[in-house]
Amino acid sequence: MNNFTFYNPTRIEFGKGTIAKLGKLIPSGSRIMLTYGGGSIKRNGVYDQVIKALEGYEIIEFGGIEANPQFETCKLGIALALKGDVDFLLAIGGGSVLDGTKFIAAGMKADSDDLWKLVTREVPIKDAVPLGCVLTLPATGSEMNPNFVISRRETKEKKGNASPKIFPVFSILDPETTMSLPGRQTANGVVDSFIHVMEQYLTVNINTPIQDRQAEGVLLTLIEEGPKVMKNPNDYEARANIMWSSTMALNGLIGAGVVHDWSSHVIGHQLTALYGVDHGRTLAIVLPGVMEHQREAKGERILQYARRVWGITAGTREEIINLAIERTVEFFESLGVSTTLKGNGCPEEAVSLVGKRFRGEGMKLGEHGAIDGKAVEEILSLRSGY
Amino acid sequence: MNNFTFYNPTRIEFGKGTIAKLGKLIPSGSRIMLTYGGGSIKRNGVYDQVIKALEGYEIIEFGGIEANPQFETCKLGIALALKGDVDFLLAIGGGSVLDGTKFIAAGMKADSDDLWKLVTREVPIKDAVPLGCVLTLPATGSEMNPNFVISRRETKEKKGNASPKIFPVFSILDPETTMSLPGRQTANGVVDSFIHVMEQYLTVNINTPIQDRQAEGVLLTLIEEGPKVMKNPNDYEARANIMWSSTMALNGLIGAGVVHDWSSHVIGHQLTALYGVDHGRTLAIVLPGVMEHQREAKGERILQYARRVWGITAGTREEIINLAIERTVEFFESLGVSTTLKGNGCPEEAVSLVGKRFRGEGMKLGEHGAIDGKAVEEILSLRSGY
Repeated sequence: MNNFTFYNPTRIEFGKGTIAKLGKLIPSGSRIMLTYGGGSIKRNGVYDQVIKALEGYEIIEFGGIEANPQFETCKLGIALALKGDVDFLLAIGGGSVLDGTKFIAAGMKADSDDLWKLVTREVPIKDAVPLGCVLTLPATGSEMNPNFVISRRETKEKKGNASPKIFPVFSILDPETTMSLPGRQTANGVVDSFIHVMEQYLTVNINTPIQDRQAEGVLLTLIEEGPKVMKNPNDYEARANIMWSSTMALNGLIGAGVVHDWSSHVIGHQLTALYGVDHGRTLAIVLPGVMEHQREAKGERILQYARRVWGITAGTREEIINLAIERTVEFFESLGVSTTLKGNGCPEEAVSLVGKRFRGEGMKLGEHGAIDGKAVEEILSLRSGY
Repeated sequence: MNNFTFYNPTRIEFGKGTIAKLGKLIPSGSRIMLTYGGGSIKRNGVYDQVIKALEGYEIIEFGGIEANPQFETCKLGIALALKGDVDFLLAIGGGSVLDGTKFIAAGMKADSDDLWKLVTREVPIKDAVPLGCVLTLPATGSEMNPNFVISRRETKEKKGNASPKIFPVFSILDPETTMSLPGRQTANGVVDSFIHVMEQYLTVNINTPIQDRQAEGVLLTLIEEGPKVMKNPNDYEARANIMWSSTMALNGLIGAGVVHDWSSHVIGHQLTALYGVDHGRTLAIVLPGVMEHQREAKGERILQYARRVWGITAGTREEIINLAIERTVEFFESLGVSTTLKGNGCPEEAVSLVGKRFRGEGMKLGEHGAIDGKAVEEILSLRSGY
């Protein structure tokens, strides 16, 4: 096991009816800015529950944070919150609303000339306004981690930063709020969570049995519970298990002391930035390609994954690795998530265009730093579908 | 899954050489009281590492906190810390030193007439002096939870309290500090951790696949790694895996949203209070008795435990349950931990004497409140060894 620091002070309030606890979680007298996305919370009753729970607080609202939250949108949020003298931010939504809100929280305490630099890590996050969350879409883990990712339309960039200052003070996870999600978002969330685990698991074996089994536990649960919610969106137990899986996938725990490889995320971000592909879907395209391309380097871990997660025991090493990749692809596709560039509406030239971004920067990805621009092209070629 | 709150702000610094980080973890200018036990830290080099890392701080020392920390001892610690105007406590040791230090931290902020009431929960813990920890004995999980248990020799009582105010601010977990532990303490720690998991797992099935697999992951790791450290005390990797298992066993995570049954602990505490049996060993006596006595009520979970932890798949329901209990006992005994009253030096009359304590209080234990004084006697009879 590698040395590690684990620190995660976010309070989780999990279960039915927990939105009613808001009044005890936010300091009385706070001036709150509610942040949300396209307004689905006003149709599914979540907004009403929040407003009821916040009786007596001064509230302003900032809606319209889009999927892949845009820098320009968040800047408007910063300005509004500063003008309103807001001292607590409450994000209601999924990872995009939360990430946008984390950036607003940090941006409110930063020099207004430094805002983009705060996203690109050229300037550190020194302070932030406290924030809480009512999660309505389990996927990104943002509800219990200190990270955000922000997109910039004009330059087609998607970048992120992290700081202990932007851990949510609390996150309310009521699985009932997820029952009205469109199937596409539910499926994307399951895939996103699955791949968060894979990127902290499918690297090299350095003797981390606790973390391995925690990771495998999340994968197995997503494989079991994912199909249940696709079939019956109102299955509370399955919704609850997926919601907790999703948080556990990226709250730092399964990643403590192990070797990471975030190459699928970094490559996937380019597909979102260039073609607007849903985040979870970019991962579903890239990960199987990374597994195939890195089948030697990741071989030992793919074999463990095959055995423990998919119960594959028979066959040669090569056959087992093939079957593990196949099962992974089949699982994503079974949820209705396409795993090719073509299937997600990206042109064939995406292969070279994305590859070029890594050639240019001379960036090396993967746990061995072995994935360069050429390798990115090879990975995407494997997943082109053309 | 049940509704739950999860909150754990303790920072973990895990790995070789992490004691050197102390100077960054404790606010500069703090007046620190170091607390420790019998002085083994002065023989194994841990004390020297701590002193070196704390150069520049004002330090006083309070040694002599015993196993099953005594109320009277801790009162001396409170007096010394108050007299020394201490504003940070640093516990160096295992669960006993930590529990004692947590009580000192809370006691320093309480009315001096209320100290025992603070232990018995008659008075709540409203405030505490901040504390940190250098853990040298993985077992109790106290390094990442808000609990303490204190004993009182004169009345042969062992009671506990909990409060978010007494979470350690940080805990340093350097597996190297555990290499010089006597085999008996190492084995006790493995058994203690194992049973912490069992008491949050072996109850009823309420559809908690994530927590189940996290629990099973800790059990499997202890089963694999325990024998390794008994054979080779200097096996860093095995020491590291046991240390992290032990923390994970009782930091709130595997217990979130599941049904608990702390009957083995509550019964075991009486054996420590009456006969001074090591805490881990009391659990090794009681748990197999609880499993046998509650084999019907816990049947579904024992079957899952048998299958997933011990790989037992063949046999009738009764045979599988028998075998699961047998394997559990064999595992404890293989580490040199006796699982009977006789083997741990308790007289036969312990059966009725402990039973009487529960008859008197009319206390009902177990997840169904089905374990009364009579049942406690039956459980201990099953484990008497006479």
